[in-house]
This record gives sequence, C-alpha cells and structure tokens, in this order.
Amino acid sequence: MKHFFSVEDIDNSEQWIAEAMQLKKSPLAHKTLGTHKTLGMLFFNPSLRTRLSTQKAALNLGMEIMIMNFSGEGWTLEFEDGIIMDQGSSEHIKEAAQVVSQYCDVLAIRSFAELKDREEDYKEKVLQGFMKYATIPVINMESATGHPLQALTDALTIVEHKTETRPRVVLTWAPHPKALPQAVANSFVAMMQKLDVDFAVTHPKGFELANQIIKDTPVFYDQDKALDQADFVYVKNWSAYQDYGKTSLDFDWTLTKEKMKITNEAFLMHCLPVRRNVVIADAVLDSQQSLVIKQALNRVYAAQLVLKKLLDKK
Amino acid sequence: MKHFFSVEDIDNSEQWIAEAMQLKKSPLAHKTLGTHKTLGMLFFNPSLRTRLSTQKAALNLGMEIMIMNFSGEGWTLEFEDGIIMDQGSSEHIKEAAQVVSQYCDVLAIRSFAELKDREEDYKEKVLQGFMKYATIPVINMESATGHPLQALTDALTIVEHKTETRPRVVLTWAPHPKALPQAVANSFVAMMQKLDVDFAVTHPKGFELANQIIKDTPVFYDQDKALDQADFVYVKNWSAYQDYGKTSLDFDWTLTKEKMKITNEAFLMHCLPVRRNVVIADAVLDSQQSLVIKQALNRVYAAQLVLKKLLDKK
Amino acid sequence: MKHFFSVEDIDNSEQWIAEAMQLKKSPLAHKTLGTHKTLGMLFFNPSLRTRLSTQKAALNLGMEIMIMNFSGEGWTLEFEDGIIMDQGSSEHIKEAAQVVSQYCDVLAIRSFAELKDREEDYKEKVLQGFMKYATIPVINMESATGHPLQALTDALTIVEHKTETRPRVVLTWAPHPKALPQAVANSFVAMMQKLDVDFAVTHPKGFELANQIIKDTPVFYDQDKALDQADFVYVKNWSAYQDYGKTSLDFDWTLTKEKMKITNEAFLMHCLPVRRNVVIADAVLDSQQSLVIKQALNRVYAAQLVLKKLLDKK
Repeated sequence: MKHFFSVEDIDNSEQWIAEAMQLKKSPLAHKTLGTHKTLGMLFFNPSLRTRLSTQKAALNLGMEIMIMNFSGEGWTLEFEDGIIMDQGSSEHIKEAAQVVSQYCDVLAIRSFAELKDREEDYKEKVLQGFMKYATIPVINMESATGHPLQALTDALTIVEHKTETRPRVVLTWAPHPKALPQAVANSFVAMMQKLDVDFAVTHPKGFELANQIIKDTPVFYDQDKALDQADFVYVKNWSAYQDYGKTSLDFDWTLTKEKMKITNEAFLMHCLPVRRNVVIADAVLDSQQSLVIKQALNRVYAAQLVLKKLLDKK
Repeated sequence: MKHFFSVEDIDNSEQWIAEAMQLKKSPLAHKTLGTHKTLGMLFFNPSLRTRLSTQKAALNLGMEIMIMNFSGEGWTLEFEDGIIMDQGSSEHIKEAAQVVSQYCDVLAIRSFAELKDREEDYKEKVLQGFMKYATIPVINMESATGHPLQALTDALTIVEHKTETRPRVVLTWAPHPKALPQAVANSFVAMMQKLDVDFAVTHPKGFELANQIIKDTPVFYDQDKALDQADFVYVKNWSAYQDYGKTSLDFDWTLTKEKMKITNEAFLMHCLPVRRNVVIADAVLDSQQSLVIKQALNRVYAAQLVLKKLLDKK
Repeated sequence: MKHFFSVEDIDNSEQWIAEAMQLKKSPLAHKTLGTHKTLGMLFFNPSLRTRLSTQKAALNLGMEIMIMNFSGEGWTLEFEDGIIMDQGSSEHIKEAAQVVSQYCDVLAIRSFAELKDREEDYKEKVLQGFMKYATIPVINMESATGHPLQALTDALTIVEHKTETRPRVVLTWAPHPKALPQAVANSFVAMMQKLDVDFAVTHPKGFELANQIIKDTPVFYDQDKALDQADFVYVKNWSAYQDYGKTSLDFDWTLTKEKMKITNEAFLMHCLPVRRNVVIADAVLDSQQSLVIKQALNRVYAAQLVLKKLLDKK
C-alpha cells in the first residue's frame, strides 16, 4: 500500500479488522513507532471526528502532528496542468504537495465534493493531485467520492457486534435539507462487498449510486422490504448521482422506531454528524440498538491501523 | 469535583490557592501526571490568554493537546432536545459531547454569552450540554455567565500581593463601546465572597449584576466612595443585566490616575484584553501599581491546578 | 542576537550557513535543547511553508509549539500609543506582547504589508511592537518589509549548489496579478550583499526597490542583459515602492525557457508560492535547473538554526 485512498487499498479485510481490534485492546503498544515522525493533516473542509480521532491515532503511535486548515490559514491551490495562474489561485498542487512532503512523513487530507460538476468531483483532483506529486504516503480523510477510514471503521464495528456468521446489513438513504456527497455511501458499499455479509441498499428512485460502485449489490426502492430481517441498519443521506447534487426532505424515509421493528432487532449505524428527527428519529438514536457512539470510537483504531501500516513500510 | 464549571466547584479556596502557588514555584513537578492523557480544547469564541495559558498548563503536566475552533473548523451544534434538525445545525450536542469524550481525557470549552436573550444565556446551554453528555471532566474556559479560571487566577493574585490580612477589594464597572458579558464580573464576585476580604462593587445605575450573584455584597453607585481606602481595584466592563446587553461609554467611569489617588495606593487588576483610555487610563495601566501582566501569568497556574485535580481523580 | 528581525541580525553569514548545513546533516542532534521550551507562533496572515517548516524546526529541537491565528482565533490588536481604544481594536500590543511572553520562550510572528500606506508598512508596527514589548526573543516569519528566514534559506541554497567560487546571482522581477509586498526581495538583496557573489537586480522601470535597500547593487532595466551568464536566477514579483503597491501583468517579464538560455545554465530559485506561467513558465519550473523544492526544504534548517541560536543564548 503506497497510499490509503480507497477501500480498494485494504488488501485483506479480515486481517485488517483483526489488527485494528488488537490496536483497540492495546492502543499504546506501538508508542515508539512514530517517534520523530510527523503527520501532516490538511483540511480543505470542516472536520470534528476525523480531525480528533486521526490526531488521537497519531498520538497513540507517538507521532508529531502539524495541521493546516486551507481555508483561512493557507493559499488557494490550483490543480489544472498548464494553466496560466493569473486568477484566484496562488499555488499549484505540484509545488504544494512536494513541499509539504519534505516536512512530514505521512500526509492526511480532507477535501469534499463540491456537488456542482459530477465529472469534476469524480476526478478527485485534490487527492489525486496530492498522490501524484507527494513523495510520502497520503491518507484519504474523506475525499470527493470516498471515505475509506469511515468504511474501515464501519466494518470493524459490524464484526465487533455481529451475532450471526453472515449478518444482513442494509444501507438506507435518509432525507436531508442540504446536499451531501456520496463519499460515505460509496465507501460503505465497497467495504460491504468485501465482507461476508448479506448486503442490500435501499433508497428512493432518483438516488441511485453510481453503477461502478453498486455493481451487483441488490437495491430496493421499498425501504420496508429492505429492512426486513436486517441485523445492521446503516442510515446515511446522499445527494443524487444522476440529477447530480439534488437532495430531498422526504421524511417518509426517516429511520423511525416503527421501521426498526421490521428488522431483526438490528443495530443502528451512522457515521455522524446526524440530523436528529430528519435522518434518524430520537427514539432510535437514543435506544440501546444504536452503535453510533461506539462507531465513532472505532475511528481512532481504523486511523491508527492505517498509520501503523504506512509507518511499518517506511 | 466532577467538572470545573463555576467558582462553586472550588471546595476550599485557601487550599487551592496554596496549591496553585506551589505549582507556580515548581511548574514541572508533575510533568508525568498527564502522560498519554489528552486535553481537548473546544473554542466557540476567540481566545488569546485562555488558549495559550491553558495549553501551557497542560504541557507543564505532560498532557497532549487537541484543539477545535468550532467556527470554521467544525459543525454547527444543536442544543435543543427533540428538535427536527432540518435547519442550520448539523450535529447535536448529544453526539458531539459523547464522541469527543472518547478521544480525550479532559475537555475545556469556551462559549460566550450572545447577549440577545438573558434567559437563554443564563441557561448555559453549551457548557451544560457538554457537562450533561460528556463522559469526561469538563472545564469552563469562560461560559455565557462565568469565568471561574479567571476568578481563581484573581484570588491567587490578590493573596500573592496583599499586605493587609483583610484587604479592601473593589470591583468597579468601566465604560466600553461594545457589549460584553457579565461572566468575569459574576465569577469575580462569587470568588471574593469566598475569600477573607472587605469586598464591594461599584457601577452606574442600570448596571446591577444579578441578585443571585451579588447576594449581600455592598454595592455603591458612587465610584469615589467605593474606591476610598481600596487595596485592590479590579476594573471590568460588563453590559447590563436588567436592560440586557445594554452598554455605555460613560467615560466618567474610566479608571484614571486621579481616581487611584482616592485608594490606599491600590493594586490595579483587570482580566485583559483591556481597551486603553476607555476602561483604564494609560497612566494607571503603565504604573507600578498595575498587576495586569502578573495576573495573566497566574492564568497558567490556575488552569494547571484545575487540570491536576481532575487528573489526580482519574 | 536579541531578536531575529532582519538579515542584519546575521552577524557572520559564512558561519551561519555552515551551521545550517550541519543541522541539515543531523537534524535531531540537538533534540533535547528545546525540552520544556515553547515556541509561540502568531499568524496575522496565511502561511504554508513558513508555518510547517518552522514547526518542523522546533520539533527537531524538541520544543513544544503553540499556534495563534489572529484572524478568527484572537483579538484585533492596537499598535498606536496613547490612543483612546473605543473603536475596533480590543487589545493593545503592550499587553498582548508582555502576556504572550510569559507563556512562551520564543515568539515567531508573521504580519504582511498592507500595501496601502508605504510609511506605515515600513514602520513595521507589528514586529517592532512585539520586539519592543515582548520579554522573549522574537523571530520574523515575514513582516511588512522583510523575510529574513527566506533570505537565509536562499543563501544556504546558493552555497549548497554553487560551482563557481563567486557565482553570478540575478534577482529578476516577474509579473503578478495581485500586489505583493517587497519583503522577500528586500531581504534577498540584503542577504546577497553579505555574500561573496556577483549580484544584480533587474526589473521594469517603476519597480525600483528602496534606495536604502539597493545601495550600490547594479540594477538593469533590460532583463536579457541582466540574465547573461547568470549562475542563479531568483525570480520574484514585488509591487512598486514608488507608486506604492502598484502591480503589473507585463508577461514579457515571465521567466521562460528562452530566457534561461541566456544564462550560464543557471539554477532557478523562487520562494514559493509561485503562479505558474505568470511568474515562471512550466518548462522552467519543471526543469532539472529548478531548485524551488529543495529551497523549500532548506526553510527547516534556516528556522532551526535561528531557533537554536536563540535557545543557546538562554
């Protein structure tokens, strides 16, 4: 693994999950691995869980951390090749990535989809640009189209809590007032396709994920039908891929206590932040079945495992 | 002490002050107490002294530090229960507080009054929300209605400099162009009520602090009368509690050299930042009687004592 | 050296460069020099290289780091003496500098020119204010009129790469869509005047640097003539000193492959960030002759040397 860009970089899911579990048991077991190693964290967008859990993971490995918030603290970057930079951008990714690589040992980057131009977003110009020009490993802390640290966390959480050998896992779309990227859903789907689970996706018509993501995963337009006998319900809003960036507040899709009754007393999952009573009803979020807080804790060990693997290689 | 929210959490003022003095003499005496412990600092408002002195205090104890500036770096939080979150807020305090608690060992939070709705401010929704849902100790780094780290600093500074057994301490209002919260004044009053001092408050009519704060502390509308024979003059602006958030630029209340002559060669105190020649005249701030810089240094030891007590308990 | 404010603070260029080279060979040789010492970094403007390279330098010396971004995180500072602070500024430099000095061991500050009023900018009120009132050493991380850490880096890079005993070094102006300060050019000129190099400056009429900077350095209005036989070409835009803050997009001054042919296969230098195909053509930046990335790495050792000298003194 040169970079950790997508779920595809997880070469052996079972083994990764076992190693992450091990880190969870003994978070400080590798406290000297990161001595005199620096993690550079570059944020082009807001972050709470990812910011803090990735820092915590680096600290657990004894790393030093340097953080850049590009909005406000730094320069506007240019990503196009050959362009005459006489407009708003002050610095080209070519220089930024090479320079930062010289000050750090690992680079973690967050850069969301802009949800204006699908082709642009799916080009992943920020992460691809850094991976192309950086001379050190790059970690995706949520890019335009993927959030693999979250997906690894989710896999870990499912394996930790499953009682069936092959549990039924359902990813259900939820309403949202603001257009959100497909990143979390895309990576979750890719992750589930690698696990031994009975996986399905459900969403209203018009909210289909990309074909190259969904592949042969069963998709239901009928949420109730999808939730039937589910052991894990992963709730997440995403805006439309076809009518790109379209969102909807169709509250019939809010995950309620009633809908949870259709399931096999399923565990509730969500990556957070979650809009209460829009995406998921209070009664479900506050129930014993909710794993959302435990899931957030696992973010530390997913990030720590990825950092450890990248440091081990060096 | 579960949290450090208000002056009420100081169970024994004399002992706390003695312990803080001890930390000032040997700041690095407990350098390993915080090993592998993380202080999370959450800022909803600007901060210079609090930001840096609290960091310094944590470093003196060997802690690791993670900082979140909520404006810009994070999500807008919701504090109401049962609300349908289809507006501006992306995350509920319930999740935010529980999640952050899993990444840190102590949480320090700054969140000012908005000065629009007195009842709302005095509910202390941000600090109370974090204290309710966090699973780790919470430290108030200035909330809507109190600033106990400042008050502890002030008590320490008074005890350090007093020459009388029972000095006269006067808190005087000062003019200000911008409405400021009552937090510093509220906590200073509560702190003085716990010390063996001859304490009085003076302000123009209309700037009364809340009755539940003032209790039986003498209040003067005549500044000169209050300053008479004072050993310590604490200057601070606050906006009105009655006509909530009203401010005034009544320069007759600016603390000048002439007014200092009424006192018993009093020491000058202020929490900073201070607007020169509005709140206090240059001649007073730049005089030998001014303790404002020394006071700011003591912020480190007040914060360090609180952190130490919370870590000792763990 | 009390502070590191300008190139004038480098008392012995040759020795400094030799020491910086030594740090580059063994960056961790002084890892305990900074134990329990804190570097305070104050940013009034954006920063990427300076922010990260100075942090890295401090970490290499074992220092702790506290960062303040004044826009957003802190208070607006006042720099005038005797002013009645009833307008936008909340805190006077007198207090800010003294207070911060108590929490840190070294202070590094970035504050750009505003390019509105030449006299104001050349007064260097921010850096001068901090140097006047701070009780600890202050490092200039680019001020209104100078960027000595960059100049030291540049000298180091030239000495590292020169093949002639006395190489020809040419500083050439370049076009730019946005007015930039003279800081980098000013400090580079002053630095070259201290080195044993054949140095010249070239720029269009109207872009003369200040006489007190240029002194007897040869100046060419004919770029081709200046570039003839150059061993190092340092490209940099600056806005006009005479018609203060005027900029120009005169693309004839863009450094192209054709112009590089006039030189003695010169090395290309630039402080970054650089606007591609405006300041320098892609073909030059991406050529083997470009030192810009290596130059950026040397920022670490320039900063580390300055920090080391200031810590050694303590």
